[in-house]
Amino acid sequence: MIIRSKDTKVEEIAHLRDGEGTVTKRTLAPAQPDLHQKLLARFTIKKGCSIGNHTHTGEVEYYYILSGEGVVTEDCGETSVFPGDVVVTGWGQSHSIRNECDKDLEFVAVITTEK
Amino acid sequence: MIIRSKDTKVEEIAHLRDGEGTVTKRTLAPAQPDLHQKLLARFTIKKGCSIGNHTHTGEVEYYYILSGEGVVTEDCGETSVFPGDVVVTGWGQSHSIRNECDKDLEFVAVITTEK
Repeated sequence: MIIRSKDTKVEEIAHLRDGEGTVTKRTLAPAQPDLHQKLLARFTIKKGCSIGNHTHTGEVEYYYILSGEGVVTEDCGETSVFPGDVVVTGWGQSHSIRNECDKDLEFVAVITTEK
Repeated sequence: MIIRSKDTKVEEIAHLRDGEGTVTKRTLAPAQPDLHQKLLARFTIKKGCSIGNHTHTGEVEYYYILSGEGVVTEDCGETSVFPGDVVVTGWGQSHSIRNECDKDLEFVAVITTEK
């Protein structure tokens, strides 16, 4: 099955996970719970905006950075991430991500679940 | 955890799934079988090259097209795909993908499993 870009759902979400400002979420494909696929989406975060801190238990989330630069806060501290880097968060870990740069931060997010 | 782009494994694979030529596979993160995460990778396919036809049973694969243009063959026929499009293949379906254009075809591939 082909899902065309124009048919993907785009949402402007304010204060996602209690983050700053508004982020753009483009859902690339519907969730498939029977196949443990919870999320496949592309996020755009403008300067000064963020996805707030949240925890992943019983699942793993990947952020694959496509463009821009982000600051990721994990349980162990802050790290800058760049295109090609991957943020992996699961096993009860937490993360948040924000953009402090003029260029939009773009990444693909994937969540798969244990059950 | 942050996986830096420079630390991701890159393989040049000839005749992947009996396809034409060589494709580049960059594995973005290790598989997590307990979380049903089988593959997170970025593929680059040059003109004249392809990933051959193969079937996904008990799992679903997504190709999220980043750049270039591809020709996808599914059980129902051929379709051209463009940046932003998503190919979804599971439930015993088959697919292949090839590049007939000068520009490299780049996409993110995700596989999650039922068991």
